[in-house]
Amino acid sequence: MFNDVFLKACRKEAVPYTPVWFMRQAGRYQAEYRAIRERYSFFEISHHPELCAQVTRLPVEKLGVDAAILFADIMTPLKARGIEVEIVEGVGPVLNQPIRSGADFAQWKQLDPARDLPFVLDTVELLHQQLNVPLIGFAGAPFTLASYLIEGGPSKNYHKTKAFMYTHPEDWAALMDDLADMTLNYLQAQIRAGAQAVQIFDSWVGALGEKDYQIYIAPTMAKIFTELKKTGAVSLYFAAGAGHLLNEWNKLPVDVLSIDWRTSADDLDRLQISKAIQGNLDPSLLLAPLPILKERAKTLLDQLSNRPGYIFNLGHGVFPEVSEENLRELTKFVHHYPKV
Amino acid sequence: MFNDVFLKACRKEAVPYTPVWFMRQAGRYQAEYRAIRERYSFFEISHHPELCAQVTRLPVEKLGVDAAILFADIMTPLKARGIEVEIVEGVGPVLNQPIRSGADFAQWKQLDPARDLPFVLDTVELLHQQLNVPLIGFAGAPFTLASYLIEGGPSKNYHKTKAFMYTHPEDWAALMDDLADMTLNYLQAQIRAGAQAVQIFDSWVGALGEKDYQIYIAPTMAKIFTELKKTGAVSLYFAAGAGHLLNEWNKLPVDVLSIDWRTSADDLDRLQISKAIQGNLDPSLLLAPLPILKERAKTLLDQLSNRPGYIFNLGHGVFPEVSEENLRELTKFVHHYPKV
Repeated sequence: MFNDVFLKACRKEAVPYTPVWFMRQAGRYQAEYRAIRERYSFFEISHHPELCAQVTRLPVEKLGVDAAILFADIMTPLKARGIEVEIVEGVGPVLNQPIRSGADFAQWKQLDPARDLPFVLDTVELLHQQLNVPLIGFAGAPFTLASYLIEGGPSKNYHKTKAFMYTHPEDWAALMDDLADMTLNYLQAQIRAGAQAVQIFDSWVGALGEKDYQIYIAPTMAKIFTELKKTGAVSLYFAAGAGHLLNEWNKLPVDVLSIDWRTSADDLDRLQISKAIQGNLDPSLLLAPLPILKERAKTLLDQLSNRPGYIFNLGHGVFPEVSEENLRELTKFVHHYPKV
Repeated sequence: MFNDVFLKACRKEAVPYTPVWFMRQAGRYQAEYRAIRERYSFFEISHHPELCAQVTRLPVEKLGVDAAILFADIMTPLKARGIEVEIVEGVGPVLNQPIRSGADFAQWKQLDPARDLPFVLDTVELLHQQLNVPLIGFAGAPFTLASYLIEGGPSKNYHKTKAFMYTHPEDWAALMDDLADMTLNYLQAQIRAGAQAVQIFDSWVGALGEKDYQIYIAPTMAKIFTELKKTGAVSLYFAAGAGHLLNEWNKLPVDVLSIDWRTSADDLDRLQISKAIQGNLDPSLLLAPLPILKERAKTLLDQLSNRPGYIFNLGHGVFPEVSEENLRELTKFVHHYPKV
């Protein structure tokens, strides 16, 4: 029997209980994942459909969450286009030749998912057969991808990325167009292969002020979500520390906005946010004693669970030090919390 | 003739023009600073009053800003108490023995500024004689200092610090008390030596949600600012990415709140913020072409400069790649912008 509670919540339809999943719900906190990682690298897992599907299913099987999310890295489609990105353990994506101008990406080949990423599509097809919950497809957002391409790796303040935006606005627009086409291509292929939802990770876009977002980012995201809407899949948009962009986000043709613990229910009311909401527990609370974790989850549910369209999640990803038992308890707590 | 425009703005008194200074206004972007750093380490500069005063004065002399800020590091008072902190170039403060429980700091000696930091007080006294603008004293806030002490260095997500808070609330309260006493001691001594204002840097406290701030931080900051108020010096409070804490900040007995580019004039109105405001230009804009930089500064001035109590500043610190010429032009632009 297929569990569609998550999809209903995304569409702001009535649900019998609050659905829950966790960002980065497949990972090192799980003994089974660690065992697999002892034998295979991240690259090997993501390139082998059976393995990748197994890892993607783990949290559904072990925690009882209401959605699975494709196990993947945001740089995968760029690597598949021949861009030299290395994922350095404990650091993140690193590029030896960061972008300096439009000439540096003018010759990049277009992404053809079936040709360049068959392993991803095979994984999605497998999962579509295996899962009894929706599969969320996965992609990075143009700004966040561009930040790695321009900074050459992770950054604290994105000075180079912003300087590129301000100084080369036409090259920036061309880069956004390139990455938007790629992201759309990639997500449409995942949807055709069986993903019922897609989440776009714009992890670092909160570094921009509202005006910069309006000028340099919003048109690109509007284009992507407009096209995604035509597929019938639901779309979710995530960034950390981006509460100041909610007004802009609420104008996008996206279904679900992911908020973190720095955005409150009061903020949603004050800004008259009308979209379905996903979030927003501080993942650090997963290290707290269970009574404190539950107390905070209760506060959240009291504030948000009767909103039309609410999905319980964290404000950012699960991390290796978390206890799986706490996540299992939390999932149960959310599922059993009475809806008024 | 002493320029008190900055102090008047801090006290929300009428001013003839908008005062301006820049966080981290003394630094590597200046040729004179780089020349000094070729001969002396950061440690040497901060321990030699003549040198340290010279570096502190540089931006006043070269840019024409309305305030100087003591050139110092937030870890200085901790080092002066014998805590082993190393400032690693390009990384930040690093501790080999991070705090794990209350026992790890129970035996720390109290800070006696005259005994432990005479070089800082001598620098302040020198500057008090030399400057014709106010000197802003400098200290880190308890949360931000605690984050280094617990994480063992810079962090992305402060999981360990938050876990400590949630799991050892009594030890956390004791640590906040210890660091509050130290910070207060340190700032009171700077004020007695001649600082007319003090800014407390709580750079990373924006990582906390509003409820955590209420429970674990606000009482400590209220105590510090209450005591500082008795000195007659004005107080300023800074954090990056902390717009979601403004409601809490507005309740503190502090004079000026520093906001970054993620907080808008609309937010200040919506939250009915009554304090003087400092900020909030994105420092990345210092890399933009001058017309764009000025256009953004103009927008800011149009929105904020007629508010009672406004000080033009950045939302975060100046960085090495910035051109001094841009900062000089920006200072001039702000000074000449007509007040309605």
